[in-house]
Amino acid sequence: MNNTEQDIPDIVINRLPLYVRTLNDLKSMNQTTISSEHLGHLLQTTPAQIRKDFSHFGKFGKQGKGYNIDYLLEELREILNLNKSWNSCVVGVGKLGQAVINYQGFKDEGYLIKVAFDISIPKTKTISDIEIRSISDMNQYIKTLDIKIGIVTVPAIDAQGVIDRLIQSGVKGILNYAPMKPIIPKNVSCMNIDPILSLQSMSYYLDK
Amino acid sequence: MNNTEQDIPDIVINRLPLYVRTLNDLKSMNQTTISSEHLGHLLQTTPAQIRKDFSHFGKFGKQGKGYNIDYLLEELREILNLNKSWNSCVVGVGKLGQAVINYQGFKDEGYLIKVAFDISIPKTKTISDIEIRSISDMNQYIKTLDIKIGIVTVPAIDAQGVIDRLIQSGVKGILNYAPMKPIIPKNVSCMNIDPILSLQSMSYYLDK
Repeated sequence: MNNTEQDIPDIVINRLPLYVRTLNDLKSMNQTTISSEHLGHLLQTTPAQIRKDFSHFGKFGKQGKGYNIDYLLEELREILNLNKSWNSCVVGVGKLGQAVINYQGFKDEGYLIKVAFDISIPKTKTISDIEIRSISDMNQYIKTLDIKIGIVTVPAIDAQGVIDRLIQSGVKGILNYAPMKPIIPKNVSCMNIDPILSLQSMSYYLDK
Repeated sequence: MNNTEQDIPDIVINRLPLYVRTLNDLKSMNQTTISSEHLGHLLQTTPAQIRKDFSHFGKFGKQGKGYNIDYLLEELREILNLNKSWNSCVVGVGKLGQAVINYQGFKDEGYLIKVAFDISIPKTKTISDIEIRSISDMNQYIKTLDIKIGIVTVPAIDAQGVIDRLIQSGVKGILNYAPMKPIIPKNVSCMNIDPILSLQSMSYYLDK
Protein backbone atom coordinates (compact mmCIF):
# COMPACT_ATOMS: atom_id res chain seq x y z
CA MET A 1 0.00 0.00 0.00
CA ASN A 2 1.34 3.44 -0.80
CA ASN A 3 0.73 6.95 0.41
CA THR A 4 -1.55 8.02 -2.38
CA GLU A 5 -4.40 6.21 -0.63
CA GLN A 6 -5.85 9.51 0.61
CA ASP A 7 -6.63 10.58 -2.94
CA ILE A 8 -8.61 7.55 -4.03
CA PRO A 9 -11.89 8.57 -5.66
CA ASP A 10 -15.07 7.55 -3.83
CA ILE A 11 -16.21 5.72 -6.94
CA VAL A 12 -13.21 3.37 -6.71
CA ILE A 13 -13.81 2.76 -2.99
CA ASN A 14 -17.45 1.98 -3.81
CA ARG A 15 -16.33 -0.78 -6.19
CA LEU A 16 -13.99 -2.52 -3.75
CA PRO A 17 -16.72 -4.36 -1.80
CA LEU A 18 -17.92 -5.95 -5.04
CA TYR A 19 -14.39 -7.17 -5.71
CA VAL A 20 -14.29 -8.62 -2.19
CA ARG A 21 -17.59 -10.40 -2.66
CA THR A 22 -16.59 -11.88 -6.01
CA LEU A 23 -13.18 -13.00 -4.73
CA ASN A 24 -14.88 -14.62 -1.73
CA ASP A 25 -17.13 -16.55 -4.10
CA LEU A 26 -14.11 -17.73 -6.11
CA LYS A 27 -12.27 -18.70 -2.95
CA SER A 28 -15.24 -20.76 -1.77
CA MET A 29 -14.95 -22.64 -5.08
CA ASN A 30 -11.29 -23.37 -4.24
CA GLN A 31 -9.88 -21.09 -6.94
CA THR A 32 -6.49 -19.63 -5.97
CA THR A 33 -5.60 -17.15 -8.74
CA ILE A 34 -7.54 -14.98 -11.18
CA SER A 35 -6.64 -12.79 -14.16
CA SER A 36 -7.94 -9.25 -14.53
CA GLU A 37 -9.65 -10.51 -17.70
CA HIS A 38 -11.62 -13.16 -15.83
CA LEU A 39 -12.43 -10.85 -12.91
CA GLY A 40 -13.54 -8.21 -15.40
CA HIS A 41 -15.81 -10.74 -17.06
CA LEU A 42 -17.39 -11.71 -13.75
CA LEU A 43 -18.00 -8.08 -12.81
CA GLN A 44 -19.02 -6.96 -16.26
CA THR A 45 -16.24 -4.39 -16.45
CA THR A 46 -12.96 -4.12 -18.39
CA PRO A 47 -9.64 -5.66 -17.26
CA ALA A 48 -8.13 -2.18 -17.68
CA GLN A 49 -10.61 -0.74 -15.20
CA ILE A 50 -9.74 -3.41 -12.66
CA ARG A 51 -6.01 -2.91 -13.07
CA LYS A 52 -6.48 0.85 -12.75
CA ASP A 53 -8.59 0.47 -9.59
CA PHE A 54 -6.00 -1.77 -7.96
CA SER A 55 -3.14 0.51 -9.03
CA HIS A 56 -4.37 3.06 -6.48
CA PHE A 57 -3.16 0.72 -3.75
CA GLY A 58 0.10 -0.44 -5.28
CA LYS A 59 0.71 -3.65 -7.17
CA PHE A 60 -1.46 -6.64 -6.37
CA GLY A 61 -0.36 -8.99 -9.15
CA LYS A 62 2.42 -9.70 -11.60
CA GLN A 63 1.95 -9.13 -15.31
CA GLY A 64 0.73 -12.36 -16.90
CA LYS A 65 0.46 -14.26 -13.63
CA GLY A 66 -2.89 -12.95 -12.45
CA TYR A 67 -3.78 -12.16 -8.88
CA ASN A 68 -3.39 -14.44 -5.89
CA ILE A 69 -6.95 -14.52 -4.53
CA ASP A 70 -6.06 -14.96 -0.84
CA TYR A 71 -3.55 -12.13 -0.92
CA LEU A 72 -5.81 -9.80 -2.88
CA LEU A 73 -8.76 -10.51 -0.57
CA GLU A 74 -6.70 -9.84 2.53
CA GLU A 75 -5.35 -6.56 1.13
CA LEU A 76 -8.81 -5.36 0.07
CA ARG A 77 -10.32 -6.32 3.43
CA GLU A 78 -7.53 -4.42 5.17
CA ILE A 79 -8.06 -1.33 2.99
CA LEU A 80 -11.80 -1.35 3.67
CA ASN A 81 -11.39 -2.03 7.41
CA LEU A 82 -13.44 -5.20 7.05
CA ASN A 83 -11.38 -7.10 9.60
CA LYS A 84 -12.82 -4.98 12.37
CA SER A 85 -16.34 -5.05 13.72
CA TRP A 86 -18.38 -1.87 14.06
CA ASN A 87 -21.06 -1.20 16.63
CA SER A 88 -24.23 0.14 15.07
CA CYS A 89 -27.68 1.33 16.04
CA VAL A 90 -31.00 1.49 14.21
CA VAL A 91 -33.21 4.57 14.51
CA GLY A 92 -36.88 4.02 13.65
CA VAL A 93 -38.53 0.70 14.48
CA GLY A 94 -41.36 0.60 11.95
CA LYS A 95 -41.63 -2.24 9.43
CA LEU A 96 -38.42 -1.26 7.65
CA GLY A 97 -36.48 -0.85 10.90
CA GLN A 98 -37.72 -4.24 12.07
CA ALA A 99 -36.66 -5.83 8.78
CA VAL A 100 -33.19 -4.30 9.22
CA ILE A 101 -32.91 -5.54 12.82
CA ASN A 102 -33.98 -9.05 11.76
CA TYR A 103 -31.56 -9.18 8.83
CA GLN A 104 -28.76 -11.56 9.79
CA GLY A 105 -26.38 -10.19 7.12
CA PHE A 106 -25.27 -7.18 9.13
CA LYS A 107 -23.94 -9.30 11.99
CA ASP A 108 -22.31 -11.81 9.63
CA GLU A 109 -20.24 -9.01 8.09
CA GLY A 110 -19.19 -7.43 11.38
CA TYR A 111 -21.80 -4.67 11.61
CA LEU A 112 -23.23 -5.33 15.05
CA ILE A 113 -26.58 -3.74 15.86
CA LYS A 114 -26.32 -3.04 19.59
CA VAL A 115 -29.48 -1.01 20.24
CA ALA A 116 -32.44 0.54 18.42
CA PHE A 117 -34.21 3.83 19.05
CA ASP A 118 -37.75 4.98 18.44
CA ILE A 119 -40.07 7.75 19.57
CA SER A 120 -42.50 5.17 20.93
CA ILE A 121 -41.28 2.06 22.70
CA PRO A 122 -43.18 -1.13 21.76
CA LYS A 123 -44.63 -3.28 24.54
CA THR A 124 -42.12 -6.07 23.98
CA LYS A 125 -39.18 -3.62 24.29
CA THR A 126 -36.92 -5.92 22.25
CA ILE A 127 -36.80 -7.20 18.65
CA SER A 128 -34.55 -10.20 17.97
CA ASP A 129 -32.90 -9.54 21.35
CA ILE A 130 -32.11 -5.92 20.42
CA GLU A 131 -33.40 -3.46 23.01
CA ILE A 132 -35.58 -0.59 21.82
CA ARG A 133 -34.82 2.67 23.63
CA SER A 134 -36.28 6.14 23.51
CA ILE A 135 -34.66 8.56 21.07
CA SER A 136 -34.15 10.88 24.03
CA ASP A 137 -31.58 8.40 25.40
CA MET A 138 -29.63 8.27 22.13
CA ASN A 139 -26.63 10.35 23.16
CA GLN A 140 -26.01 8.29 26.29
CA TYR A 141 -26.29 4.87 24.61
CA ILE A 142 -24.16 5.81 21.60
CA LYS A 143 -21.33 6.92 23.86
CA THR A 144 -21.60 4.01 26.32
CA LEU A 145 -21.86 1.34 23.61
CA ASP A 146 -19.17 2.95 21.40
CA ILE A 147 -21.52 3.07 18.41
CA LYS A 148 -19.92 4.28 15.18
CA ILE A 149 -22.69 3.67 12.63
CA GLY A 150 -26.29 4.85 12.66
CA ILE A 151 -28.84 3.09 10.44
CA VAL A 152 -31.70 5.50 9.77
CA THR A 153 -35.11 3.97 9.02
CA VAL A 154 -37.40 6.85 10.02
CA PRO A 155 -39.71 8.67 7.57
CA ALA A 156 -37.99 11.21 5.28
CA ILE A 157 -39.44 14.18 7.15
CA ASP A 158 -37.77 13.09 10.40
CA ALA A 159 -34.48 11.89 8.90
CA GLN A 160 -32.35 15.06 8.95
CA GLY A 161 -33.17 15.68 12.62
CA VAL A 162 -32.28 12.09 13.52
CA ILE A 163 -29.07 12.22 11.51
CA ASP A 164 -27.99 15.51 13.13
CA ARG A 165 -28.61 13.95 16.52
CA LEU A 166 -26.65 10.78 15.65
CA ILE A 167 -23.68 12.87 14.49
CA GLN A 168 -23.81 15.08 17.58
CA SER A 169 -23.68 11.91 19.67
CA GLY A 170 -20.48 10.81 17.93
CA VAL A 171 -21.58 8.51 15.09
CA LYS A 172 -19.12 8.57 12.15
CA GLY A 173 -21.13 6.73 9.51
CA ILE A 174 -24.77 6.98 8.46
CA LEU A 175 -26.64 4.35 6.48
CA ASN A 176 -29.73 6.29 5.42
CA TYR A 177 -32.82 4.44 4.20
CA ALA A 178 -34.98 7.59 4.14
CA PRO A 179 -35.65 8.91 0.63
CA MET A 180 -33.87 12.26 1.03
CA LYS A 181 -30.35 13.57 0.63
CA PRO A 182 -29.13 14.57 4.08
CA ILE A 183 -26.67 17.37 4.78
CA ILE A 184 -23.62 15.73 6.32
CA PRO A 185 -20.41 17.28 7.71
CA LYS A 186 -17.14 16.37 5.98
CA ASN A 187 -15.83 14.13 8.76
CA VAL A 188 -18.85 11.82 8.56
CA SER A 189 -19.53 9.25 5.84
CA CYS A 190 -23.07 8.76 4.58
CA MET A 191 -24.49 6.15 2.22
CA ASN A 192 -28.04 6.61 1.03
CA ILE A 193 -30.18 3.59 0.22
CA ASP A 194 -32.82 4.91 -2.08
CA PRO A 195 -35.02 2.59 -4.12
CA ILE A 196 -36.50 5.47 -6.15
CA LEU A 197 -33.13 6.58 -7.54
CA SER A 198 -32.47 2.95 -8.53
CA LEU A 199 -35.88 2.62 -10.19
CA GLN A 200 -35.41 5.91 -12.03
CA SER A 201 -32.08 4.75 -13.43
CA MET A 202 -33.71 1.45 -14.37
CA SER A 203 -36.60 2.99 -16.24
CA TYR A 204 -34.12 4.48 -18.73
CA TYR A 205 -33.55 0.92 -19.93
CA LEU A 206 -37.14 -0.33 -19.75
CA ASP A 207 -38.17 1.31 -22.98
CA LYS A 208 -35.23 0.13 -25.12
CA MET B 1 -31.06 14.81 -27.99
CA ASN B 2 -28.74 13.10 -30.43
CA ASN B 3 -28.17 9.59 -31.65
CA THR B 4 -25.25 8.80 -29.42
CA GLU B 5 -27.69 8.09 -26.60
CA GLN B 6 -27.22 4.32 -27.01
CA ASP B 7 -23.60 4.59 -25.87
CA ILE B 8 -24.15 6.43 -22.62
CA PRO B 9 -22.28 4.76 -19.76
CA ASP B 10 -24.44 3.24 -17.01
CA ILE B 11 -22.62 5.38 -14.49
CA VAL B 12 -23.91 8.53 -16.21
CA ILE B 13 -27.46 7.17 -16.33
CA ASN B 14 -27.18 6.37 -12.64
CA ARG B 15 -26.41 10.01 -11.87
CA LEU B 16 -29.35 11.48 -13.79
CA PRO B 17 -32.01 10.75 -11.12
CA LEU B 18 -29.97 12.76 -8.61
CA TYR B 19 -29.92 15.69 -11.03
CA VAL B 20 -33.69 15.37 -11.39
CA ARG B 21 -34.20 15.35 -7.64
CA THR B 22 -31.96 18.37 -7.07
CA LEU B 23 -33.58 20.35 -9.90
CA ASN B 24 -37.01 19.51 -8.49
CA ASP B 25 -35.91 20.90 -5.13
CA LEU B 26 -34.68 24.10 -6.79
CA LYS B 27 -37.89 24.43 -8.77
CA SER B 28 -39.96 24.08 -5.61
CA MET B 29 -37.96 27.04 -4.26
CA ASN B 30 -39.01 29.02 -7.38
CA GLN B 31 -35.51 29.06 -8.87
CA THR B 32 -35.60 29.18 -12.69
CA THR B 33 -31.95 28.85 -13.82
CA ILE B 34 -28.80 27.29 -12.42
CA SER B 35 -25.12 27.27 -13.38
CA SER B 36 -23.11 24.07 -13.64
CA GLU B 37 -20.96 25.53 -10.84
CA HIS B 38 -23.91 25.84 -8.46
CA LEU B 39 -25.37 22.46 -9.45
CA GLY B 40 -21.91 20.93 -8.96
CA HIS B 41 -21.73 22.47 -5.50
CA LEU B 42 -25.13 21.08 -4.54
CA LEU B 43 -24.20 17.59 -5.75
CA GLN B 44 -20.64 17.68 -4.47
CA THR B 45 -19.20 17.11 -7.92
CA THR B 46 -17.32 19.31 -10.41
CA PRO B 47 -18.98 21.63 -12.96
CA ALA B 48 -16.91 19.86 -15.64
CA GLN B 49 -18.44 16.51 -14.66
CA ILE B 50 -21.93 17.92 -14.93
CA ARG B 51 -21.27 19.53 -18.34
CA LYS B 52 -19.74 16.26 -19.53
CA ASP B 53 -22.72 14.21 -18.32
CA PHE B 54 -25.18 16.52 -20.07
CA SER B 55 -23.09 16.58 -23.25
CA HIS B 56 -24.10 12.95 -23.85
CA PHE B 57 -27.61 14.21 -24.61
CA GLY B 58 -26.78 17.30 -26.62
CA LYS B 59 -26.67 20.88 -25.37
CA PHE B 60 -28.86 21.79 -22.41
CA GLY B 61 -27.54 25.29 -21.72
CA LYS B 62 -25.71 28.22 -23.24
CA GLN B 63 -22.21 29.09 -22.15
CA GLY B 64 -22.38 31.65 -19.35
CA LYS B 65 -26.18 31.64 -19.11
CA GLY B 66 -26.63 28.51 -17.01
CA TYR B 67 -29.39 25.97 -17.44
CA ASN B 68 -33.10 26.66 -17.58
CA ILE B 69 -34.37 24.43 -14.78
CA ASP B 70 -37.80 23.67 -16.27
CA TYR B 71 -36.32 22.74 -19.64
CA LEU B 72 -33.51 20.67 -18.14
CA LEU B 73 -35.92 18.82 -15.84
CA GLU B 74 -38.28 18.01 -18.69
CA GLU B 75 -35.43 16.72 -20.88
CA LEU B 76 -33.99 14.57 -18.10
CA ARG B 77 -37.43 13.18 -17.21
CA GLU B 78 -37.97 12.34 -20.86
CA ILE B 79 -34.58 10.61 -21.15
CA LEU B 80 -35.25 8.54 -18.02
CA ASN B 81 -38.85 7.70 -19.03
CA LEU B 82 -40.09 9.32 -15.83
CA ASN B 83 -43.22 10.71 -17.48
CA LYS B 84 -44.64 7.21 -17.79
CA SER B 85 -45.91 5.02 -15.02
CA TRP B 86 -44.72 1.44 -14.62
CA ASN B 87 -46.69 -1.44 -13.18
CA SER B 88 -44.72 -3.36 -10.58
CA CYS B 89 -45.05 -6.35 -8.29
CA VAL B 90 -43.43 -7.31 -5.01
CA VAL B 91 -42.24 -10.88 -4.43
CA GLY B 92 -41.81 -11.86 -0.79
CA VAL B 93 -44.16 -10.45 1.84
CA GLY B 94 -42.04 -10.69 4.98
CA LYS B 95 -41.21 -7.57 7.03
CA LEU B 96 -39.13 -6.05 4.24
CA GLY B 97 -41.74 -6.77 1.57
CA GLN B 98 -44.42 -5.25 3.79
CA ALA B 99 -42.29 -2.15 4.33
CA VAL B 100 -41.87 -1.83 0.55
CA ILE B 101 -45.62 -2.23 -0.07
CA ASN B 102 -46.42 0.38 2.58
CA TYR B 103 -43.88 2.89 1.25
CA GLN B 104 -45.82 5.68 -0.46
CA GLY B 105 -42.81 6.90 -2.43
CA PHE B 106 -43.07 4.25 -5.16
CA LYS B 107 -46.58 5.34 -6.17
CA ASP B 108 -45.70 9.03 -5.96
CA GLU B 109 -42.97 8.52 -8.55
CA GLY B 110 -45.06 6.44 -10.94
CA TYR B 111 -43.96 2.95 -9.85
CA LEU B 112 -47.33 1.34 -9.18
CA ILE B 113 -47.32 -1.83 -7.10
CA LYS B 114 -50.25 -3.81 -8.54
CA VAL B 115 -49.90 -7.16 -6.79
CA ALA B 116 -47.60 -9.03 -4.40
CA PHE B 117 -46.59 -12.69 -4.36
CA ASP B 118 -45.55 -15.01 -1.59
CA ILE B 119 -45.24 -18.74 -1.00
CA SER B 120 -47.72 -18.49 1.87
CA ILE B 121 -50.75 -16.23 1.65
CA PRO B 122 -51.49 -14.30 4.88
CA LYS B 123 -55.00 -14.52 6.35
CA THR B 124 -55.80 -10.92 5.47
CA LYS B 125 -54.87 -11.50 1.80
CA THR B 126 -54.13 -7.79 1.27
CA ILE B 127 -51.61 -5.27 2.59
CA SER B 128 -52.42 -1.58 2.02
CA ASP B 129 -55.04 -2.69 -0.53
CA ILE B 130 -52.46 -4.72 -2.49
CA GLU B 131 -53.54 -8.31 -3.03
CA ILE B 132 -51.17 -11.09 -2.00
CA ARG B 133 -51.17 -13.98 -4.49
CA SER B 134 -49.41 -17.31 -4.62
CA ILE B 135 -46.07 -17.38 -6.44
CA SER B 136 -47.53 -20.14 -8.60
CA ASP B 137 -49.91 -17.56 -10.14
CA MET B 138 -47.06 -15.16 -10.98
CA ASN B 139 -46.91 -15.75 -14.72
CA GLN B 140 -50.63 -15.16 -15.19
CA TYR B 141 -50.82 -11.95 -13.11
CA ILE B 142 -47.70 -10.40 -14.62
CA LYS B 143 -49.10 -10.83 -18.11
CA THR B 144 -52.66 -9.74 -17.27
CA LEU B 145 -51.58 -6.68 -15.27
CA ASP B 146 -48.81 -5.71 -17.75
CA ILE B 147 -46.18 -5.69 -15.01
CA LYS B 148 -42.74 -4.50 -16.11
CA ILE B 149 -40.85 -4.31 -12.80
CA GLY B 150 -40.38 -6.99 -10.14
CA ILE B 151 -39.30 -5.93 -6.66
CA VAL B 152 -37.61 -8.89 -4.97
CA THR B 153 -37.74 -9.05 -1.16
CA VAL B 154 -37.28 -12.79 -0.61
CA PRO B 155 -34.28 -14.30 1.25
CA ALA B 156 -31.02 -14.46 -0.75
CA ILE B 157 -31.25 -18.21 -1.18
CA ASP B 158 -34.60 -17.93 -2.99
CA ALA B 159 -33.81 -14.79 -4.99
CA GLN B 160 -32.29 -16.24 -8.20
CA GLY B 161 -35.21 -18.63 -8.65
CA VAL B 162 -37.73 -15.82 -8.14
CA ILE B 163 -35.84 -13.51 -10.50
CA ASP B 164 -35.66 -16.21 -13.22
CA ARG B 165 -39.39 -16.71 -12.88
CA LEU B 166 -40.13 -12.97 -13.06
CA ILE B 167 -38.05 -12.65 -16.23
CA GLN B 168 -39.69 -15.70 -17.80
CA SER B 169 -43.05 -14.06 -17.10
CA GLY B 170 -42.00 -10.95 -19.03
CA VAL B 171 -40.65 -8.53 -16.41
CA LYS B 172 -38.00 -6.16 -17.86
CA GLY B 173 -36.62 -4.62 -14.68
CA ILE B 174 -35.64 -6.14 -11.33
CA LEU B 175 -35.18 -4.18 -8.12
CA ASN B 176 -33.39 -6.72 -5.96
CA TYR B 177 -33.26 -6.31 -2.18
CA ALA B 178 -31.72 -9.74 -1.60
CA PRO B 179 -28.01 -9.62 -0.71
CA MET B 180 -26.73 -11.51 -3.76
CA LYS B 181 -25.66 -10.65 -7.30
CA PRO B 182 -28.18 -12.27 -9.61
CA ILE B 183 -27.43 -13.54 -13.10
CA ILE B 184 -29.52 -11.43 -15.48
CA PRO B 185 -29.94 -11.66 -19.25
CA LYS B 186 -28.81 -8.66 -21.31
CA ASN B 187 -32.30 -7.45 -22.21
CA VAL B 188 -33.29 -7.07 -18.55
CA SER B 189 -32.17 -4.28 -16.23
CA CYS B 190 -31.35 -5.08 -12.61
CA MET B 191 -30.56 -2.76 -9.71
CA ASN B 192 -29.36 -4.34 -6.49
CA ILE B 193 -30.13 -2.71 -3.17
CA ASP B 194 -27.51 -4.04 -0.86
CA PRO B 195 -26.85 -2.45 2.52
CA ILE B 196 -23.73 -4.54 3.11
CA LEU B 197 -21.92 -3.19 0.04
CA SER B 198 -22.79 0.33 1.21
CA LEU B 199 -21.54 -0.36 4.74
CA GLN B 200 -18.35 -1.91 3.41
CA SER B 201 -17.61 1.19 1.33
CA MET B 202 -18.41 3.33 4.35
CA SER B 203 -16.08 1.53 6.72
CA TYR B 204 -13.13 2.62 4.55
CA TYR B 205 -13.78 6.14 5.82
CA LEU B 206 -14.61 5.28 9.44
CA ASP B 207 -11.01 4.86 10.44
CA LYS B 208 -9.67 8.07 8.89
